[in-house]
Amino acid sequence: MRAVAQAQPNIALIKYWGKRDVDRNLPAVDSLSVTLDSLWTRMSLKFDEQLERDTLTVNGSMAPSMLQRVSNCLDLVAGDERASARVDSTSNFPIGAGLASSASAFAALVVAADEAAGTRHGTSALARLAGAASGSAARSLFAGFVELTAGAVEIEVRNIADCASWPLEVIVAVTAEEPKPIGSTEAMIRSAETSPFYSSWLEQQDGDLEAARDAVQQKDFAKLATVAEHNCLKMHSVMWASRPPIVYWNQATLACMQTIRTLQADGHGVFFTIDAGPQLKAVCLPEASDIVRVALEQTSGVIRTLQSSLGPGARLLEQE
Amino acid sequence: MRAVAQAQPNIALIKYWGKRDVDRNLPAVDSLSVTLDSLWTRMSLKFDEQLERDTLTVNGSMAPSMLQRVSNCLDLVAGDERASARVDSTSNFPIGAGLASSASAFAALVVAADEAAGTRHGTSALARLAGAASGSAARSLFAGFVELTAGAVEIEVRNIADCASWPLEVIVAVTAEEPKPIGSTEAMIRSAETSPFYSSWLEQQDGDLEAARDAVQQKDFAKLATVAEHNCLKMHSVMWASRPPIVYWNQATLACMQTIRTLQADGHGVFFTIDAGPQLKAVCLPEASDIVRVALEQTSGVIRTLQSSLGPGARLLEQE
Repeated sequence: MRAVAQAQPNIALIKYWGKRDVDRNLPAVDSLSVTLDSLWTRMSLKFDEQLERDTLTVNGSMAPSMLQRVSNCLDLVAGDERASARVDSTSNFPIGAGLASSASAFAALVVAADEAAGTRHGTSALARLAGAASGSAARSLFAGFVELTAGAVEIEVRNIADCASWPLEVIVAVTAEEPKPIGSTEAMIRSAETSPFYSSWLEQQDGDLEAARDAVQQKDFAKLATVAEHNCLKMHSVMWASRPPIVYWNQATLACMQTIRTLQADGHGVFFTIDAGPQLKAVCLPEASDIVRVALEQTSGVIRTLQSSLGPGARLLEQE
Repeated sequence: MRAVAQAQPNIALIKYWGKRDVDRNLPAVDSLSVTLDSLWTRMSLKFDEQLERDTLTVNGSMAPSMLQRVSNCLDLVAGDERASARVDSTSNFPIGAGLASSASAFAALVVAADEAAGTRHGTSALARLAGAASGSAARSLFAGFVELTAGAVEIEVRNIADCASWPLEVIVAVTAEEPKPIGSTEAMIRSAETSPFYSSWLEQQDGDLEAARDAVQQKDFAKLATVAEHNCLKMHSVMWASRPPIVYWNQATLACMQTIRTLQADGHGVFFTIDAGPQLKAVCLPEASDIVRVALEQTSGVIRTLQSSLGPGARLLEQE
C-alpha cells in the first residue's frame, strides 16, 4: 500500500518556545499559527514486508540522520508491528533553515502513514502524532488560522478561522539557506534551564494568545501585528538571555526588520515574525503584498523571497 | 573665574538600565564600567555676572536644546544664586549616538563648575551631582574600573581597579553617527512600565555585578567576557520586549557581533558590549587589539573605529 500526502509549513504568530515534557514533546505554551499554501512537502510512503528496514530519501538523496525520527513517528501511527517503510520526501523550499520544514514533513508523513496503514486515526489524533515528532507539525494538519493548546498530557489543535475569511499573504525573506547553528529542541532546553526571562515568557503567553485570537476573529490587523511582533521579540529575547546566548538572526534579518518598520511608517499593512532561524516572515494584507515583496527583495542580504497565501491542512494526494 | 575640565566617556560592562527614582535620576540597578582614555569632552566654563542667562555651545555651535540640563546641573554644583555661565563644550567623538557623550560632558561640567565656583565638593559629591544630570556620568569622575552602587537616596561611586593593573583596550565600531531614535531616559521608563522581563532584569543584576567585580579583581578575562555579554544581551532583551519595542541595533551592529564571535572562536581575547545605540564596543586584551580593530573595520556597515586604552577620571585642565 502506497500513499502520497502533502502538507505545508505553518508560521506561528504566537510562538511555541519551550517544552512542558521533553519526552512527550509537549509544548510549554499554547500557540497560534497560519498554514501556508505555496510551500509544501510531499511525502510518498509504502509499507513493504520485503524491506529489511525503513529507508528515507529527502529530495532524492538518502537521509540517514533523519531516519530515526521518521521511524519513530511511523511506529506511533502504524504500531511497532508494522512492516518496514520506504519513505520519499520532496520539498519546494529550504530544509532545516527556520522555515518549518519539519512541520510540513511530519504533517504529511502522518497522513500518508495513516492511509498506507489503514489506521484511520482522524485529524485530531494525527495532529497529536505529528506533534509528538515535531511540536509545530501538529498545526500543519489544519488549514488557515490554527490554535494549539497544550494540556498536561496531550495537545488539542483546532482551526479558528479559515483562509477565505481573512486572506492574508505571507512573504518569506530568505537570508541564509544553510541549516541553523543549533536545533530548536536543544535551544528550547537551554532557554528553559538558563534564561532568566523564561518564566515571564511562560506567564505572558495566555494573554498574548487571547489578544491574537480576538484579533483574528475581529480581523483587526493592527491588533494582530502588535501582539505578534511583541511575542516574536519576546521569544528571541528569551534566547538572547540564555547562557550561552542563542542567536538565530543575521544582519539581513535585522535589515528586513528595518524594511518592515519603514513600510509600516508609510501606512502599509504588514508585520514581521521570525522563528528559530534567520528568515524574516512578513505577514501582509493582500493589497500590501507586492510592495512588501519588492521592498524585501531590495533589502541588503536577502537571497530571495517566497510568497504564499494561507492554505489547507495536510491532505492525501494519491493512494494505490 | 574660568575653568576648563576634561572627562572621558565610560563603557558599562554591567549595565545601568532603569531608574529607581526618575526625578532624582537614581539608577534602579548598580553598574560597573571602564573609563576610556582617548575619547574626550572638554568643558570650558566661566561664571559672568554680566551675562543675562546661561549660554552653551557644543563644538562651536549654539545648543539651546541641551541648555536646560546644563543649567540645572550648574545650579546643583554652584547653587541657584550663582551668576550666569558661558559654557563651551568640545568633543572628539560623535554626540548622542550611544557613545556615552553625556557621561563625559556632565562629568567634565561638574569639575569645571566646581572649580569656577570655588565650591570644592570633592570627587564623591561631584559624582553624585553629575549622576543627577546623567546617570552614567557619575562613573566618569573615576579612572579605570568603576563601580556605581545605587542606594535608596543617593549613589556611591568608587574605583575598584586602576588602569595600569589590567590594561584592557576598547575598540568602538561606529555603525551610525546620527542621534539615536529614542533617548535613554524615555526608553528606560518605557521598559520599566511595559517589559515583562524588567523585574527579572532587576533581580539578576546583583549576581552579575558580583561576578564581574570578582573577574576584575582576579583579572579573569573569560569570566568577565561571559558575564558582560550576558548582561548586555539581557539589557537589550528587556528593550526588545518593551511595548512598543525599543531597537537600538542596526544590521552592522549584528554583523559586528558575528565578527566578535569569529574572533573568539579563533582564540582571541575579546568580548562585546552594546549600549543604548547601534555602536558595538569590543573590549580586548592588549595583544588582541590590532586584530580586533582590523576585523571590525572590515565588517560590513562599520563607518570607522575608535580605539582607546583605559583612562583617568574627570580632571581640571586649566583655570584662570
